[in-house]
Amino acid sequence: MRARLRSVFESRGFQWSIITVIVVNALALGCETSSALTASYGGLIGLVDSTALVIFVAELVAKIYAYGWRFFRDHWNNFDFVIVSLSLLPASAAFSVVRSLRILRALRLLSTVPSMRRIVAALLKALPGVFSIVGLLMLVLYVAGVMATRLFSEADGEHFGDLGTSLLTLFQIMTGDGWADTMQSVMETKPLAWVFFVGYILISSFTVLNLFIAVVVNAMESQIKEEEAEIPAPRTHGESELLAELRSLRLEVNALRESRP
Amino acid sequence: MRARLRSVFESRGFQWSIITVIVVNALALGCETSSALTASYGGLIGLVDSTALVIFVAELVAKIYAYGWRFFRDHWNNFDFVIVSLSLLPASAAFSVVRSLRILRALRLLSTVPSMRRIVAALLKALPGVFSIVGLLMLVLYVAGVMATRLFSEADGEHFGDLGTSLLTLFQIMTGDGWADTMQSVMETKPLAWVFFVGYILISSFTVLNLFIAVVVNAMESQIKEEEAEIPAPRTHGESELLAELRSLRLEVNALRESRP
Amino acid sequence: MRARLRSVFESRGFQWSIITVIVVNALALGCETSSALTASYGGLIGLVDSTALVIFVAELVAKIYAYGWRFFRDHWNNFDFVIVSLSLLPASAAFSVVRSLRILRALRLLSTVPSMRRIVAALLKALPGVFSIVGLLMLVLYVAGVMATRLFSEADGEHFGDLGTSLLTLFQIMTGDGWADTMQSVMETKPLAWVFFVGYILISSFTVLNLFIAVVVNAMESQIKEEEAEIPAPRTHGESELLAELRSLRLEVNALRESRP
Amino acid sequence: MRARLRSVFESRGFQWSIITVIVVNALALGCETSSALTASYGGLIGLVDSTALVIFVAELVAKIYAYGWRFFRDHWNNFDFVIVSLSLLPASAAFSVVRSLRILRALRLLSTVPSMRRIVAALLKALPGVFSIVGLLMLVLYVAGVMATRLFSEADGEHFGDLGTSLLTLFQIMTGDGWADTMQSVMETKPLAWVFFVGYILISSFTVLNLFIAVVVNAMESQIKEEEAEIPAPRTHGESELLAELRSLRLEVNALRESRP
Repeated sequence: MRARLRSVFESRGFQWSIITVIVVNALALGCETSSALTASYGGLIGLVDSTALVIFVAELVAKIYAYGWRFFRDHWNNFDFVIVSLSLLPASAAFSVVRSLRILRALRLLSTVPSMRRIVAALLKALPGVFSIVGLLMLVLYVAGVMATRLFSEADGEHFGDLGTSLLTLFQIMTGDGWADTMQSVMETKPLAWVFFVGYILISSFTVLNLFIAVVVNAMESQIKEEEAEIPAPRTHGESELLAELRSLRLEVNALRESRP
Repeated sequence: MRARLRSVFESRGFQWSIITVIVVNALALGCETSSALTASYGGLIGLVDSTALVIFVAELVAKIYAYGWRFFRDHWNNFDFVIVSLSLLPASAAFSVVRSLRILRALRLLSTVPSMRRIVAALLKALPGVFSIVGLLMLVLYVAGVMATRLFSEADGEHFGDLGTSLLTLFQIMTGDGWADTMQSVMETKPLAWVFFVGYILISSFTVLNLFIAVVVNAMESQIKEEEAEIPAPRTHGESELLAELRSLRLEVNALRESRP
Repeated sequence: MRARLRSVFESRGFQWSIITVIVVNALALGCETSSALTASYGGLIGLVDSTALVIFVAELVAKIYAYGWRFFRDHWNNFDFVIVSLSLLPASAAFSVVRSLRILRALRLLSTVPSMRRIVAALLKALPGVFSIVGLLMLVLYVAGVMATRLFSEADGEHFGDLGTSLLTLFQIMTGDGWADTMQSVMETKPLAWVFFVGYILISSFTVLNLFIAVVVNAMESQIKEEEAEIPAPRTHGESELLAELRSLRLEVNALRESRP
Repeated sequence: MRARLRSVFESRGFQWSIITVIVVNALALGCETSSALTASYGGLIGLVDSTALVIFVAELVAKIYAYGWRFFRDHWNNFDFVIVSLSLLPASAAFSVVRSLRILRALRLLSTVPSMRRIVAALLKALPGVFSIVGLLMLVLYVAGVMATRLFSEADGEHFGDLGTSLLTLFQIMTGDGWADTMQSVMETKPLAWVFFVGYILISSFTVLNLFIAVVVNAMESQIKEEEAEIPAPRTHGESELLAELRSLRLEVNALRESRP
């Protein structure tokens, strides 16, 4: 029974059915954002959404039954489990955020469509080498945030009023969006503020640049390693041929020597 | 007759004539955008445009006659066919869009100038490996769009009023243009909105970065492969020389052995 | 005594203690930016800060005692020394800048956490190859700044009033932030100003692009060199095996020759 | 006499003197932008500027005398000649542009400082492979400009009033600066304008991306080629050693054979 279920889960037909349910559900949730469509077809949309949820829950329960605890060893299964669980949280009117999280179910495409799965796996593989540079970036952001709050909180309360606001403003400056306006408004009372801004932009963009390079070098390297693994090193063949030739020659010379009268 | 036509089409002179017609036509359409020039030389511009169109249609008809159905097997020919056909659509005053599409004829330079043709071919070759990341990007955009519409449609109807507007706003944020202003206006009523914005920016820029890397790695790889194909692997030569030396040595030892009394 | 101190400094426990002090101090300075928290816990925060400073000074003094003048040969030690010294500057109310520099102590994480240390070392290694392009960029900035001040100071005093303002505006344009608005305001009186702006953007972005490439190529290269250094060139092994085989063969032939009657 | 002049020009001392004159002149022109400094030291600044110009003209005349017509074969000499000539143009009050071109003399640093010279040469070497993509970009810009002018000139005369304005706006959109505001203002009357804008951004950024890649690949390649030229292929050495060993072995076997009774 469990084995049969497992073979069903791994069949192409089953995967495509689940993909279809995910896509239909995502489209229904998209329609739901339009108040006009909700007014006319609200019932139908709700029905599609509930049905999809029932199917997802049934799928998860059946999978847990079929695979037992091994189910939770696979990261993708845990991902599906969390996503579907989020939809089962009680959603009162106050927690409209929780209701809006239902659309995250569309992310199940990542775990269901094989090509998506490969890409996400590749993206995640680039992450570890990146963590310490992200740490560096966060350190730079924190130090700059504390300094900016102390220096500019009176000059420009809107952008640097407290530490949280400063961090958000500095993140914005790091993405290069509208930093000049922020600097102008600070420089009205602190004419030397440009030193801080120019320094921060140079340091943070140089760090981001290196973050970027780390990712590129990582990607290139793993790409190159994969390719090298595919090539069966043609020259070794040539060498082993040489070695074999040499050994048989030696045997022959040996035979020559021993056969001497 | 057909063969002679074909040799005409493939001659340098013919290609340069067509390129000249395309450029003159493009310049005429450029002049037409100026109401002052249209007032004085409107008739001349119209004449140039009609003449160019007649030439293009004649060229296409002659080519289809000369090559027969094989004409449509070449992608560039289909490209030319679609571009010229667009100009033949009836353009009433209501459909000013159709009239403005005439300038697309200038894109025929892409299929006519050989160096342009090579570049476009190279650009298109980079595309296939990119599709699944574009799919990922569209999934991220859709999920973020539905969430943003549900969460922020009341707080900021201008940017997140309905799903289409949200998607456009999120595309804008992805290109890094003025996202801070959008976030400010949402945060006036939803102070926690920054979680969504910062998360979205990190995820979308990380995905775009990987899209970028995919293209670079693709380009590098095909570049390297082309170069490797050109180099005739010099070291194999050295080895085969060794092998030849070794074999003749073996023959000599053999001869030595056999000649023994 | 000195040797014992040195072994303490190099122990893991000591390093982790210092890291803890740095982090706690950084968090305290973060809390201090909030006037609400300062009102309630100002005394505690001040205490944490003073204690941390005492610990840092004690650590430096002990290290200088333990290592003697060699202490100043290590760049990281000099870095720590400067950072801690900045905190000892007398901070009157007028010099709020000096007080805000205390957060720079958090940067001691760079010299204390080993993985951070490696990254910063890698970042700095990329710098030398970059200096002459930075020089080029500064030359472009200066020339454009003088030209812009002469040409536009009357048309747009806000952005190009004097050389300093022009340089800041041009730095802003180089980062691609809001250059169009600046150009619009200049073009109201100088309609040909777009020639300067478009030219400047093309030249500076092309230079920055090459700066970027220099860094990437540098990083790639040193990466590749490190990897090559790690690989013990597996084929040489095969070759030395061949050579050994060949030499023993030669000895055997020699023996054969000498043993001839 | 000519040979002696030439050896003077190629001496380090002469180069450093010229560099000093260029830097002093550039600084003087920088000071001249400040009306306060001009009021006090205007005479001195003018004197420095005139002296520098006299020195540059004298240097050029002497060089032309020393090298004859060969002077104009070197691109750097032509560059210097044009730069200095620009300063000799008659500058009436009307042509303030001409006066502002004097600062271009600072660019002579590019041709005089050897490390700058190398960088600029490297930058220029990256150019040829880039020209056809720049052609493609200009074609895209022109076609989009004509279309935008036809479609949007009435909806948003400020940004798309005539072909020139449209091209400038589209260049701005290509650099990613404030495109959303432009799109908003057009979409007020043409709600479908987003199709054009999103399409244009995707196409132009994809083309720019490929332009970028072309430059990177070019730079990498020439870098790699230079390095390969430096490395004398260490493994061939190993092989030639093998070959030598093998040949001497063969000679020995030959000797063995011939010495047979």
